[in-house]
Amino acid sequence: MGEFDLIARHFARPTPQALLGPGDDCALVQPSPGYELAVTTDMLVEGTHFLAGTDPRDLGWKTLAVNLSDLAAMGAKPRWVLLAGSLPAADEAWLAPFAEGFHACAQAFGVDLIGGDTTRGPLNLCVTAMGEVPAGQALRRSGACLHDDIWISGHVGLANLGLHQLLGQLELPQRWQRLCIKRLQAPQPRIALGLALRSLAHAAIDISDGLLADLGHVARASGLQARVVLNQLPHLPEGVARAEALDALLAGGDDYELCFTAPTSQRLALGCTAADLDLPLWRIGYMDAASPVGDVLLLGPDEEVIEWSRQGYDHFSA
Amino acid sequence: MGEFDLIARHFARPTPQALLGPGDDCALVQPSPGYELAVTTDMLVEGTHFLAGTDPRDLGWKTLAVNLSDLAAMGAKPRWVLLAGSLPAADEAWLAPFAEGFHACAQAFGVDLIGGDTTRGPLNLCVTAMGEVPAGQALRRSGACLHDDIWISGHVGLANLGLHQLLGQLELPQRWQRLCIKRLQAPQPRIALGLALRSLAHAAIDISDGLLADLGHVARASGLQARVVLNQLPHLPEGVARAEALDALLAGGDDYELCFTAPTSQRLALGCTAADLDLPLWRIGYMDAASPVGDVLLLGPDEEVIEWSRQGYDHFSA
Repeated sequence: MGEFDLIARHFARPTPQALLGPGDDCALVQPSPGYELAVTTDMLVEGTHFLAGTDPRDLGWKTLAVNLSDLAAMGAKPRWVLLAGSLPAADEAWLAPFAEGFHACAQAFGVDLIGGDTTRGPLNLCVTAMGEVPAGQALRRSGACLHDDIWISGHVGLANLGLHQLLGQLELPQRWQRLCIKRLQAPQPRIALGLALRSLAHAAIDISDGLLADLGHVARASGLQARVVLNQLPHLPEGVARAEALDALLAGGDDYELCFTAPTSQRLALGCTAADLDLPLWRIGYMDAASPVGDVLLLGPDEEVIEWSRQGYDHFSA
Repeated sequence: MGEFDLIARHFARPTPQALLGPGDDCALVQPSPGYELAVTTDMLVEGTHFLAGTDPRDLGWKTLAVNLSDLAAMGAKPRWVLLAGSLPAADEAWLAPFAEGFHACAQAFGVDLIGGDTTRGPLNLCVTAMGEVPAGQALRRSGACLHDDIWISGHVGLANLGLHQLLGQLELPQRWQRLCIKRLQAPQPRIALGLALRSLAHAAIDISDGLLADLGHVARASGLQARVVLNQLPHLPEGVARAEALDALLAGGDDYELCFTAPTSQRLALGCTAADLDLPLWRIGYMDAASPVGDVLLLGPDEEVIEWSRQGYDHFSA
């Protein structure tokens, strides 16, 4: 079976949102008038972003989910995606469940796979995702305002605990194991939250590298200081060493929850949003104008600054 | 130097065509009303698409050029591109000339690099390119009509000869060596030709896998048979064995010239276009309704069918 047949067989699905889907030199789409197009690309490499032997169905889901998460962080509605992949072999036993996981995520969030490229090489998966947002309403990292609350969604840190469990660096209580590994391997892009935040938040980012590191991007882009209050952080999982759980929460990454800032006047509305989406939202701190701007401070019970060493994942700083 | 600094330093350029360039979760662009968006993605892997040790400046150019070539084949005007790359190391001596070559191509064809991703792993470069075409005017593979002429641009086959020279499988005459290697390593996407063809051609494709293979895609998509007439092919390079030169022309690929079909009534106009662009255009055959449709036949001087074995490059059929 040749390259083209392989692609056709496992990845071809109807593309009702496109004028022309896969199979030509380009796909053709018709962007909606009055909307801006949000575009993002993410590359996943075996050994860097996922462990060798990761279940291909989970990997298919995650490959798309991490890209949709970037759209969520802009408040964009996902519409079209492209997938380029380099594979060591045309192994159908791997390709079939991978495509199944990818399409499950595409269907869950209403996107069409409109194009791609398949080639031979070390396992590498690269998705480009496009979404739409009404002109002027995109949530930028630079939009945070003085005195904004800082919020996070969901249960940040679980994915990192799952990774440590898989690597044998940690033994989680039985009840946490499956859950944390699931969060690592099949994260949920917070699309519905992103759409709701268009009218509520000033700035947003998805937590991929670690809460403090990603919040630092918001602080720097906005020219403010971010202050995270230890006492306001979500409860840490029971039965896990506190230092490790806190480290996972603050620096773990890979959860793809959203971190956003909103004016204090939106607290009521955000409480309703949390209930409406059945998704916990935690108010964990506030934006300040103190120097040095761009920093993220962690404040203890007496407003003292707690030193924190890890600042998230940098692929080249090891 | 961390990941983010590396990217900022070598890839950040002004992005006048974007509302928001690199550095946020997504880039934001405003598509032109009344236009369709053409989108394509191509992944280049060391050892599969380019030789280890390829000059990084050439590679930067080519990485973008092969994607712009897909836009050219749709008649789209290139506007925005994203670059995702996996690199074995954060080697500035490689990254700087690579970025230089990439941006030289971006500038030559008027596109903004609006986003990307950099990670550690085996060398892999993935570009997504977006262009615009007036609604309904895109050149699809499926648009060829009965009795259309088949045309190709430029000097198809030189890139493949250059590859064989580099691999030591062929010794080209001195005067051809540099030229053929240049065509392989720094191809010219035929953007101006693609724009001109919007109103002249029925179907187009870029020649990346080989003339006969790529023309086969047009024939299949259009439900016709493509007939290439040996006597109408461009002159083969002097001083190269005829069999090898013909093989490079018919099956070599990697030239990124355009192959297109147009009604016979456009011959005069296409002659003018060739002169206007200073780019040779060769009328090499015609579309027929004979069975089996989807085939590409090579016809000899007496209209006899010449058997031809190679049908272009398939990454997984080796």
